[in-house]
Amino acid sequence: MDRAELIPALKNTATRLRIESVRATSEAGSGHPTSCCSAADLVAALFFGEMRFDPKDPHHPGSDRFVLSKGHAAPVLYAAWAEAGAFDRSELLKLRTIGSDLEGHPTPRLPFVDVATGSLGQGICAAIGSALNARRIGADYRTYCLIGDGESAEGSVWEAADVAAVEALDNLCGITDVNALGQSRDTMWRHDMEQFARRWRAFGWHAIVVDGHDMPAILGSLAEARATKGVPTMVLARTIKGKGIPFVEGKPGWHGRTFKKGDELDRALEELEKQFVPAPMGVKLHEQIPRPPSRPAVSTPPVLLEPPSYKLKDQVATREAYGEALAKLGKADSRVVALDADVKNSTFSEKFEARMPERFYQNFIAEQVMMGSAMGLAARGAIPFPSTFACFLARAADFVRMAAISNLNVKIAGSHAGISIGEDGPSQMALEDLAMFRAQPNFVVLYPCDGVSTERLVALMAAHPGPAYMRTSRPKTEVIYGSDETFRIGGLKVLRQSPRDVVTVVGAGVTVFEALAAYERLKASDTPVRVIDLYSVAPIDRDALVAAGKATGGRILTVEDHYRAGGIGDAVADAVSEAGIRVHRLAVREIPRSGKPAELLDRYGISANHIVDAVQALAGGRIGAAPAH
Amino acid sequence: MDRAELIPALKNTATRLRIESVRATSEAGSGHPTSCCSAADLVAALFFGEMRFDPKDPHHPGSDRFVLSKGHAAPVLYAAWAEAGAFDRSELLKLRTIGSDLEGHPTPRLPFVDVATGSLGQGICAAIGSALNARRIGADYRTYCLIGDGESAEGSVWEAADVAAVEALDNLCGITDVNALGQSRDTMWRHDMEQFARRWRAFGWHAIVVDGHDMPAILGSLAEARATKGVPTMVLARTIKGKGIPFVEGKPGWHGRTFKKGDELDRALEELEKQFVPAPMGVKLHEQIPRPPSRPAVSTPPVLLEPPSYKLKDQVATREAYGEALAKLGKADSRVVALDADVKNSTFSEKFEARMPERFYQNFIAEQVMMGSAMGLAARGAIPFPSTFACFLARAADFVRMAAISNLNVKIAGSHAGISIGEDGPSQMALEDLAMFRAQPNFVVLYPCDGVSTERLVALMAAHPGPAYMRTSRPKTEVIYGSDETFRIGGLKVLRQSPRDVVTVVGAGVTVFEALAAYERLKASDTPVRVIDLYSVAPIDRDALVAAGKATGGRILTVEDHYRAGGIGDAVADAVSEAGIRVHRLAVREIPRSGKPAELLDRYGISANHIVDAVQALAGGRIGAAPAH
Repeated sequence: MDRAELIPALKNTATRLRIESVRATSEAGSGHPTSCCSAADLVAALFFGEMRFDPKDPHHPGSDRFVLSKGHAAPVLYAAWAEAGAFDRSELLKLRTIGSDLEGHPTPRLPFVDVATGSLGQGICAAIGSALNARRIGADYRTYCLIGDGESAEGSVWEAADVAAVEALDNLCGITDVNALGQSRDTMWRHDMEQFARRWRAFGWHAIVVDGHDMPAILGSLAEARATKGVPTMVLARTIKGKGIPFVEGKPGWHGRTFKKGDELDRALEELEKQFVPAPMGVKLHEQIPRPPSRPAVSTPPVLLEPPSYKLKDQVATREAYGEALAKLGKADSRVVALDADVKNSTFSEKFEARMPERFYQNFIAEQVMMGSAMGLAARGAIPFPSTFACFLARAADFVRMAAISNLNVKIAGSHAGISIGEDGPSQMALEDLAMFRAQPNFVVLYPCDGVSTERLVALMAAHPGPAYMRTSRPKTEVIYGSDETFRIGGLKVLRQSPRDVVTVVGAGVTVFEALAAYERLKASDTPVRVIDLYSVAPIDRDALVAAGKATGGRILTVEDHYRAGGIGDAVADAVSEAGIRVHRLAVREIPRSGKPAELLDRYGISANHIVDAVQALAGGRIGAAPAH
Repeated sequence: MDRAELIPALKNTATRLRIESVRATSEAGSGHPTSCCSAADLVAALFFGEMRFDPKDPHHPGSDRFVLSKGHAAPVLYAAWAEAGAFDRSELLKLRTIGSDLEGHPTPRLPFVDVATGSLGQGICAAIGSALNARRIGADYRTYCLIGDGESAEGSVWEAADVAAVEALDNLCGITDVNALGQSRDTMWRHDMEQFARRWRAFGWHAIVVDGHDMPAILGSLAEARATKGVPTMVLARTIKGKGIPFVEGKPGWHGRTFKKGDELDRALEELEKQFVPAPMGVKLHEQIPRPPSRPAVSTPPVLLEPPSYKLKDQVATREAYGEALAKLGKADSRVVALDADVKNSTFSEKFEARMPERFYQNFIAEQVMMGSAMGLAARGAIPFPSTFACFLARAADFVRMAAISNLNVKIAGSHAGISIGEDGPSQMALEDLAMFRAQPNFVVLYPCDGVSTERLVALMAAHPGPAYMRTSRPKTEVIYGSDETFRIGGLKVLRQSPRDVVTVVGAGVTVFEALAAYERLKASDTPVRVIDLYSVAPIDRDALVAAGKATGGRILTVEDHYRAGGIGDAVADAVSEAGIRVHRLAVREIPRSGKPAELLDRYGISANHIVDAVQALAGGRIGAAPAH
């Protein structure tokens, strides 16, 4: 069919998408119909005039991808997939009801949604991951991403702009729906298309300005994007919010407002019906969607890592062991990729880059796009390990939140945890990262203390299906586990125990060594304690903690290089509180400062000295005061 | 003194700054001397050839401000203030030691530091707040901000670029130290100055490219910035990392590396000494720093708010009561300012804008610059209330972290907490915000349940010196407190009690009403419970919780519209665990979905039904199963 025949059919498809969006949101009584109407021509053109996909198999590895970064336009996305034949149109009226997967904003509960959107500025970052994945698997699928004009104020959009240009992602095409109206007022640049164009061009993209309601122009811009090599393309589409319904077109006050069932809705639908144009009979656009080429099934090699090569008493930082393990893993499994934000020599992800440079993605100092890109890679079958200083993961906290909502297979690593980093001071110390990751109900949170456990846990987190976080430390620590020691997600290690233990001391990471030092001093004073390495903070081994607490007088002492709230103390209390076990805590209770690591551990109350004092107080015993170390 | 005489003295000052930076970092054994050397000429020019300030009174309200956004160059900042006479030069060698406030990265422990830096891309946002504050108080001070080239990859920098241009902040001057080397490799754009210039110009700034080691050119660019009206200026300075020490100049591998004491340090210092040029005798630049004009002391009017006007049983959403209280407060105190990210009609901060538009700052959809700007405003004496949906505060989590480190007087409000928002779905639900704010040891965390407590707590948080967070809810809730009820930070309210209570039920926000409904049903079955409104989550009223727990069989049941980890359950367990009280929890335990608020409360286990069931199980009693509501 030639282009001239296609146009009227596409226009009518866009009209149907508008009608479905308006109907569904009115039925739901909430939603964003006017945001759907501005985007309907763009979505119709993409789905029925540009993209290559199989509506019945949205996960097909060769399919073009579409990311709706402006997630509040979800109804037009759902209408497009229904129109394509992915599911029955009648489902659309169940929008936003508790029994339907057609939620207020898209989530991967729907098979055609790669990443949850609705927090603006994230979809475009995930689209980069999707585009990088095509390169990883040698596929020629393209990735399209629809963003809002208001959304373009998010800094993450410009992080994405830089990375896509540096990576020369010509398989990525953004489309900005410039409808000039935000939620509460007009946008920063309204319909000044030049403002958008000069920004994207300055960031190295090919930018095309079009009328977002001119179907031939839209199709032309998408074709131009496809033909543009070496740089990504941004189609800047001038649109009207509420397009097709004259009494709301371009009017403020209609964001997130639905048409009242009855006269108001009837009038809107009537206006939309008027938009249908004569079209050649028998044109069934959904039957003409080009299908992706079949691809040979990829057989994933089994991951067989050799045992760690560390010997007992070796001194190795867990961050370095992380880098080593990551490199081993990457060698064994081509799905494993690593992402950095210009700290690869501190996190030791440079060990991965040295061996697998083609699967190492540099994001420079831009943590949001690093995380968003990882989310897109995970959605397409890669096993991404983004890593940076743990404190700077807070920069991507909202991406972590959305990764959890999407239940994506991301493996995040944060180095330089806690005050034990020393002289760099509080801005470089992660003291709330455990709180951030523990809060998400589906995140695994691991915190190894030595080289062997780090390497084993990196392999376990890679094999675990779902999101995971590993916290590593800056200082070198002693290898305490033999290379044949086994670990499990949800486990812990009892390192010291006797039948006479008076308290259970729970540490993790660097505080394991403080607990072991305290153990020796307490033992010398005949005050035996049980020592636990809580390497898996979430899930947590509730039974083992309760058993240990019960065996030691109903008392547990936690000690952690983290602020008091949200970390190990809270995790252990949650595990044992219902069993009536008392949890006492040593944690960092104030904003710390620069100093030597050992000085800081002592000053902020988490050193062996403080453990000895606390155990002594709990046991009611008297142990000679220990000298500061 | 004319410009020609000034130049050699400024050059020698820059050389001294380099020498001090190199010496101090070698003495400390860590730090970033080469990052100081690239910036030394820029800093010398600013401090001794451009800025107006009083070294002995850095907080002077009329002083020009300098924000070192690239905080790792702290030693050159410290050297400049010592050179200006703020403190004795001998202090510099105490850099990074536990007894000195000259930390690895700058913090407001030092009187001349407005906001802590070291997390890149934040200082430029704070500088916007500082520049807005000048406008608020009608002062003509200027704000200067030095950022790194690698730092420019952070999206927050471009959020700042937009807001500064939209606000036409011609009293703001950025300087980018383009030394072409990041931490682990060359930067994205190396020395391609045009890449920087075209970006800043596209974002609406006046951009000037200069040689960052050409003193007359630097001074000229700063003068040009001062003369530029209507737009902010960015000076793009091409520099050499390690400038002045030929054997490291422009060499990779020298980021964050100090000169080893002995030969290596001696050689570096020898090279730097060679840089001194002949200068006119008797030029004492620090004695010639222009002082700020004296300003009349601002008398702050006492904040006397009339009692809330809500009546018992009124239905009002706490988010709306927040907006109303904020507007009343702003009317009463000119220090109060409000910041939005295009959701003012949802958070109801539009009520503030309607009455005080000149103190309402719109950041469009850019939460990082909203928070950073608030930090800068707080540092200069304003009482800023940034607000957005609570979930999107996660976008600014790293700014929250740095605000805590700076102990700034920011008052953050997050609306639409929890699953009770209903149909919009998980991307719009904050279920980890309490974890984020509780983790910071100096944050007050408030969570009112009705209109009266909201209004009273907004006034209390404004009066509290230090950072605070308020969580508000979307649905309307009943006013349960009389307008004369008093509240306190660190308090709670016992809403129901009897001598026979079998369990203490602790709720907050919307779950207070679930607890009250459960109370009625349990009372009808002769199972009395104590009901607590935990409106102050941090600090928490430990004594009152322990007393309630002891009075009710050692049992507390928490119920919260938040994920299980990091919120109210953890806070209460922390408060009472050492006292041996068992804490049982009802909280959201999985990723939720779209649905009606009441449906969701029931499905995710935090409705009155679940409270009744849990109390029944705890009390070991038998209460007729309640119908779902």
